[in-house]
Amino acid sequence: MNTTPLAALNHIPPHLHTIADYQKQAQLHLDAATWANLEGAAGDEYSLNNNLRAFADIQLLPRHLNTFAGANTQIQLLGEQYPHPIFLAPVAYQQLFHPQGEIATAQAAAALQAPMILSHLSTTSMSTLNQVSGAAKWFQLYWQGSRKAALDLIFQAQHYAYQAIVLTVDAPHMGIRDRERRAAFQLPAHIRAVYQSSVNTTPLKENQHPLFDGLMQQAATWEDIAWLLQHSPLPILLKGILHPADAQQAYQYGAHGIIVSNHGGRILDTAVSPIQILGTMRKILSHDFPILLDSGIRRGTDIFKALALGASAVLVGRPYIYGLAVAGALGAAHSIKLLKEEFEVTMALMGTSCIKQINSSYIYHQNS
Amino acid sequence: MNTTPLAALNHIPPHLHTIADYQKQAQLHLDAATWANLEGAAGDEYSLNNNLRAFADIQLLPRHLNTFAGANTQIQLLGEQYPHPIFLAPVAYQQLFHPQGEIATAQAAAALQAPMILSHLSTTSMSTLNQVSGAAKWFQLYWQGSRKAALDLIFQAQHYAYQAIVLTVDAPHMGIRDRERRAAFQLPAHIRAVYQSSVNTTPLKENQHPLFDGLMQQAATWEDIAWLLQHSPLPILLKGILHPADAQQAYQYGAHGIIVSNHGGRILDTAVSPIQILGTMRKILSHDFPILLDSGIRRGTDIFKALALGASAVLVGRPYIYGLAVAGALGAAHSIKLLKEEFEVTMALMGTSCIKQINSSYIYHQNS
Amino acid sequence: MNTTPLAALNHIPPHLHTIADYQKQAQLHLDAATWANLEGAAGDEYSLNNNLRAFADIQLLPRHLNTFAGANTQIQLLGEQYPHPIFLAPVAYQQLFHPQGEIATAQAAAALQAPMILSHLSTTSMSTLNQVSGAAKWFQLYWQGSRKAALDLIFQAQHYAYQAIVLTVDAPHMGIRDRERRAAFQLPAHIRAVYQSSVNTTPLKENQHPLFDGLMQQAATWEDIAWLLQHSPLPILLKGILHPADAQQAYQYGAHGIIVSNHGGRILDTAVSPIQILGTMRKILSHDFPILLDSGIRRGTDIFKALALGASAVLVGRPYIYGLAVAGALGAAHSIKLLKEEFEVTMALMGTSCIKQINSSYIYHQNS
Amino acid sequence: MNTTPLAALNHIPPHLHTIADYQKQAQLHLDAATWANLEGAAGDEYSLNNNLRAFADIQLLPRHLNTFAGANTQIQLLGEQYPHPIFLAPVAYQQLFHPQGEIATAQAAAALQAPMILSHLSTTSMSTLNQVSGAAKWFQLYWQGSRKAALDLIFQAQHYAYQAIVLTVDAPHMGIRDRERRAAFQLPAHIRAVYQSSVNTTPLKENQHPLFDGLMQQAATWEDIAWLLQHSPLPILLKGILHPADAQQAYQYGAHGIIVSNHGGRILDTAVSPIQILGTMRKILSHDFPILLDSGIRRGTDIFKALALGASAVLVGRPYIYGLAVAGALGAAHSIKLLKEEFEVTMALMGTSCIKQINSSYIYHQNS
Repeated sequence: MNTTPLAALNHIPPHLHTIADYQKQAQLHLDAATWANLEGAAGDEYSLNNNLRAFADIQLLPRHLNTFAGANTQIQLLGEQYPHPIFLAPVAYQQLFHPQGEIATAQAAAALQAPMILSHLSTTSMSTLNQVSGAAKWFQLYWQGSRKAALDLIFQAQHYAYQAIVLTVDAPHMGIRDRERRAAFQLPAHIRAVYQSSVNTTPLKENQHPLFDGLMQQAATWEDIAWLLQHSPLPILLKGILHPADAQQAYQYGAHGIIVSNHGGRILDTAVSPIQILGTMRKILSHDFPILLDSGIRRGTDIFKALALGASAVLVGRPYIYGLAVAGALGAAHSIKLLKEEFEVTMALMGTSCIKQINSSYIYHQNS
Repeated sequence: MNTTPLAALNHIPPHLHTIADYQKQAQLHLDAATWANLEGAAGDEYSLNNNLRAFADIQLLPRHLNTFAGANTQIQLLGEQYPHPIFLAPVAYQQLFHPQGEIATAQAAAALQAPMILSHLSTTSMSTLNQVSGAAKWFQLYWQGSRKAALDLIFQAQHYAYQAIVLTVDAPHMGIRDRERRAAFQLPAHIRAVYQSSVNTTPLKENQHPLFDGLMQQAATWEDIAWLLQHSPLPILLKGILHPADAQQAYQYGAHGIIVSNHGGRILDTAVSPIQILGTMRKILSHDFPILLDSGIRRGTDIFKALALGASAVLVGRPYIYGLAVAGALGAAHSIKLLKEEFEVTMALMGTSCIKQINSSYIYHQNS
Repeated sequence: MNTTPLAALNHIPPHLHTIADYQKQAQLHLDAATWANLEGAAGDEYSLNNNLRAFADIQLLPRHLNTFAGANTQIQLLGEQYPHPIFLAPVAYQQLFHPQGEIATAQAAAALQAPMILSHLSTTSMSTLNQVSGAAKWFQLYWQGSRKAALDLIFQAQHYAYQAIVLTVDAPHMGIRDRERRAAFQLPAHIRAVYQSSVNTTPLKENQHPLFDGLMQQAATWEDIAWLLQHSPLPILLKGILHPADAQQAYQYGAHGIIVSNHGGRILDTAVSPIQILGTMRKILSHDFPILLDSGIRRGTDIFKALALGASAVLVGRPYIYGLAVAGALGAAHSIKLLKEEFEVTMALMGTSCIKQINSSYIYHQNS
Repeated sequence: MNTTPLAALNHIPPHLHTIADYQKQAQLHLDAATWANLEGAAGDEYSLNNNLRAFADIQLLPRHLNTFAGANTQIQLLGEQYPHPIFLAPVAYQQLFHPQGEIATAQAAAALQAPMILSHLSTTSMSTLNQVSGAAKWFQLYWQGSRKAALDLIFQAQHYAYQAIVLTVDAPHMGIRDRERRAAFQLPAHIRAVYQSSVNTTPLKENQHPLFDGLMQQAATWEDIAWLLQHSPLPILLKGILHPADAQQAYQYGAHGIIVSNHGGRILDTAVSPIQILGTMRKILSHDFPILLDSGIRRGTDIFKALALGASAVLVGRPYIYGLAVAGALGAAHSIKLLKEEFEVTMALMGTSCIKQINSSYIYHQNS
C-alpha cells in the first residue's frame, strides 16, 4: 500500500503533538520495507511491546506545593554538565530515513542541546559531521573482531571531540527480525556505513559450527573490555547490559558506565525490558555510577520513571528518527522538544524541581 | 460526524438507566470538541481508564441477614450532617455543556441534597447562584499567584454562605490533553470564567525557563497553605493529594481535610488512581480526618468501595455533567439520583445499614 | 433481530457437544427480552464474567497410574447418598423458557439422578410436580416478610417429600440488571409464580425511606433464621453466602449447610466469585459441614475444581435452562448429561477414583 | 472454505521464516477436519493457548562478553550424546498430514540429527521405517490393557534399534476435543495404526459404569509400571507427568526419566502448562534425572527457557508436522532447522556457550 512514500516536509504540520503522532506520520514518509526496518523488532516483538507496556504500567505518586526556586533539569555525568537528561541513541544508517541523515540529526541535537551518540554504522563520517557544531557527541562502537580496529576508531572519535565511547555488547549476532524479513528489507546499494570494516573471519574447517566457531569467535570478551579500558583515551560505557551480574562485572572491570538496553527489542525477543530491571541494577551499584536507560521512552513521564528508578539519563531512538523521517532536522528537533517539554511539565506536576529529587518514592508500589 | 449536536432535552428519555447510558446520550448533545474536553484526559488516558478499571477490579464480600432498623446513608463531615456521601465535584465552565450551566447544577444539587462544589472557573457568579436555594455549597479555588486574591475569594464565598473551601493543588500547570488538542478544542468566546484573574507574571529574563521560572513561581507552596489556613474564616480541604507523604503533611499543617484525586486523569497521565492509594492514606491518618475520594465513580458500588477503603465521602464529576448536557437541571438531578439509588441498593445488598458499618472487611483480598 | 424465536425441538441436534453449544442454540429459541432475563446479570456483568473467568484461570495438576477399582462419583450429603455431585439450581419462572417448565426439568432431573431444587418462584405447584417421580427434591425459599408464611411452605414441601430447604439470603432487593432493563423485559401475564405471596408492607410515613424503612424491614434476619431452624422439620441451607464471617455465623446458628453463590452474578455486580472465596470458607469450617458451590459451572473441570477447593456438591443453573429452552426435558437432560460425563472423564484424567480423593493438591498454585 | 487443500510442495517457499509461518502455510495444505485434528485441543483450548502464552511471558536476562571457545549444543542423556536438545515428539497417524508420513519425518530427523520418537499409532511399521537410516529413535507406547502386549512391542522396538521407550500415561481416556468434534473429524478409512491392538474389554455387567468399570480398568497402574521396568530391556520414560508428586513417584519406581507434558493441551483442558511446573519438578528431583519438556515450544527462545528451568531436552510436535504438511521430509527438516538455528542464536545472544551453563539465573523474576 505504501508504494509511493511522501517526501520529507520542510515544516512541522500542526497536528503533531506527541511521539505517537510522529510515529503515524513517519510511516507515510517511508517505504514499507524501511518502515519494517525502523519499526520492527526481533521475533514476535514481545520485547518491543513490553518496553512500552512496562512504562505505562508504572504509576506515579506526585507531590505538590514544593517550591520551584532555581528549578532546572540539569544533570552531571562523567564530569560534564548537561542541560537535560535526554540523549540521542545511536541509530544505524540514518540516510535510510532522510537524505540528510546524521547531519540532520546533529543539527537537531545541537538545537535541543541533546548529546548525540553517533552510530558505528553511520552513513556520514565524523569529519563531515564536524561541520555541525553544537551538542556534545559520543561515539558508538560495535566490536568487529579486532582490538586495534576498535582503538583506531576511538582515537578518531577523540580527534573529532567525541567525549565518550558507547560499546554495544548485546549484538554479537544480529537480531532475527521477522517483520523485516517478511518485508524483504535490504539495505539499498547507495546506503553505506562509513566505518564498517568487513569482519575478517578464518574459513571454517570441517565440522566447525558456522555461528559458534565463526562469528562468535569475533565477539568481544571481558578480556577485550579490560584491554580497551586500559588503552582508551575516552571513557567507555557498555551498552546492552540487562543482567545484574553483568552490571556488577562492568563496574568491577572499571567501565565508566552502562546503558541498560534491550536494543529496542531488536536483538533477542522476550529479553527483559530495561525499565523492569533498572531498579535492581541501581540497588547493587554505587549511587553515582552512570547507568543510562535505553528502550521504550515515548513520553516525558517515561523519562521521569526511568530517573526515579535509578537512571542517570535516558536514550531515545525511534522517537527522533520518526521526526527525522517526517521533516529532517526540523522534525527531529521538534520530536525531541516534545519529549523535553513533556518531561519538564512532568517535573512540575510531580513537584520535583531538580533531577536529584527524583527517586523511587514517587513510584506507586501495589503493596506500599 | 457530530456536526449538529442535539439540543438539550426537557425530559428524561426512558432508556437512561445508568451513568454509562447518560455518557452515551451526552455525546449526542455536544459538539466533538466539547466532548473531547469533557471526556478526554491527559496523555494516553491511562489514568482515566485505570480510574474505572481499578474500581471494577475490587470485589465485594456482602453480608446478609443484618437488621435494617433505622438504616440511613447520613454522614458527618466538618461538623455538618449530610443526608448521603455524594458531593458534586467542581467542574469548570459549565455553560459549555448546557446554557443554564452552574444554575442548573445548583438546582439539581438542591433537589438531591448533594453538596455542590462550585468551580473557581464558574461561568456564573456566586451572587447569581444565590437565587437557587438548597443544598450545601463549597467553593473551589485555584491558586493564581496571590495570597490576597485567594483570601478575597474566600471572603466572598463566606459572604454567600459557602461552607468550605476546596483548594486544588495538583494543577500548577494544565494537563496536556492529547484528545483535546487533536479535536482543536478552544474555549468559545462567549464562555467566560467569572472569577479568573489573569496571573500576573513578571517578564522572563534571558536564560530563564518559561515554565520553572515563569508559571511555577506563581504556584502555591506549603507556606502559602499555612498562611491561608491561618487567615481563612472557612475550613480548607486540599484537592489533588495522591502521595501519602502529602496527605500526612496536609494533616500536620492543619488542613481541614484532603480530597484524594487525580483530577479525573486530566492532569498527569499514569498518576495513580485514587482508589488504589486511598487505603494507605487512611491507615496513616486519624480515623476522623476528612478524606474525600474523587475520580472514577460511575456506580453505586464504587461509592461503597470508596467508603469501605476509608473515604469520608465521594465527589462525582463527569456523571452529573453528562446529565447536565442531556437535560439540564433535570438530567443532572436524575444522574445523581441514579447513583444515590444504586448506592442505597448496594448498602442493602451488602448488609450495611449505616455508613459507619462500611469498612475494609467488605472487600475481598486475594489472599485473605 | 431475534423477532421470531424457533420453537423448542423434540430431538437433540447433533452439533450440541458442550454447554457453550447449548448456550448459542438456546438464544435461537428465546425472544430477546427473555434471553436478556436468562443471560443477563447485575450492572456491568463483571461478576457474571468473572464467575467463568475465575474457573478458567484455575489450572489442574493431574495424577496418573492410580487404580480405578470401584471408582464412582457418589457423595454423602445430609445423611443421603447421591450418585454424583451435580444439583439443579433453583431457577424462577421456568415456563418462560419452555411450555413444560418445571415439569420438564423434573423429568430431566429424574433421568440424570440430579437433585432438583425447586424455586419458590415456580410456575408449577409441588402438587403438580409430584406426578414426576424420580430424583431427590429440595425446595428453595425467598423470605417474604413472614415467619409463618415461610414455615407453611416448608411444611408443604415436607408433605411433598422435599428433603431440604434452601433459603436464599442474598436478595432482600432484586438485582439491578441493566441488560434486562435495556431489553425492557417484563414477566408475561400468563407466567405466574404459584407460591409468591404479596409482601405485606406497611404504608410509609413521611420522611421514611422507601428501601430501608420499606422493603428492607421485610428481609430476614439472623433471629428469623434461628426461629426457622428451631421450627423447621427439614434441614435448611442458606444460599448466597459469600462472606466468610457469614459462613461462620451460619454454622454457629446451626444451619445445615450453606450454598456459596453470587446468584450467577444477578444480584450485586462485582460481588466476589464463589470459587475464589470457597477455599477460605472450607478452611474455617468443619470438614464435613455441607458447603455447596453455585455460579459459574460450565464444564466438568469446573465441578472438579469446586470439589477440590472444598465444595460438597455443586449447583448448575443456566446450563440446564439452556437445554430446557432448546428441547424441553430432553434438552435439559442432555445438557446435564454432558456435564456429568465431562466430570467423569475429568476424574479419570485427574487420576481420582472417588470424590473423597479430590482435594486442593490437584490445583496448581503459582508459587508451589 | 478449505475445500480443496493445496498439494504438498517439493520445495521450501521463500516466505517461511518461523514456525508461525509454517503454521499458516500448513493450513492451506490440509482439509478443515484434519486441520482441526492437528491444531485443536481439549475443551476450550485454554491449555493449548496457555502453553504458548506461558513461554512468551518468561523474560530473559542475557549475559554478554563470555568466551565461546568450543561452544556447542550437545547434551548427554541416558548414556548417549546428542548434538542438540530437540527431539521429535510422537505424533499419531502421520499419513494424515503427508503421504510419506513417518518415513518423511524419519528422513527429516536424520537430516537434522533430531531423535525421533515414533508414535504407537504410527501408520508405518518399524520394519519399513528401518530403511531410513539416521537419527536416534525412541518408541512411544500407549498402554492398552495388557502387560504382555506392551512388552512385546518393547522387544520389537529393541529389535529395530530403538533406544528408549516413552510410555504415555496421561491419556487413559481420549481428550474431549471440541474443535475436532465441531469439524466432524473422522480418521479416514485408509489411515491405519500399524500397532494398535483392539483393547480387550470384558462386557459390562448391569450397574457397571462404562468409563470407570470399563475403559479405566484397562489403564496402566504403578504396579504395571514396576513390572514393565523390571522386564524391559530398554529404558522407559513416563510421558505426561504434570504433578510433582507423580514426578517423585516415577523417580522412586525407577523410571529412567519423565516427560513433563500436557499432551499439547489435547487431553485435559486447563491442565497446567509444563513450563510452569517444570522448575518445581527440577527442585525436587536429582540434578541428573532426565526431565524432558513437551508442549508449547515454537521458538528457539522457548527451548532455552525450558533448559534454564531444568529440562534435559525438549520435544516438539506440531512444529515439524506443519513442515511435514507443507513439504514432506523437506518441510519437516526445514522447520526443525529453523528451531535449531533460532536456539543457537539464542545461546549466542544469551552468552551461554554450552548447555550446562544454562540455568535459572538467566530468567527474570519479577521481584529479583
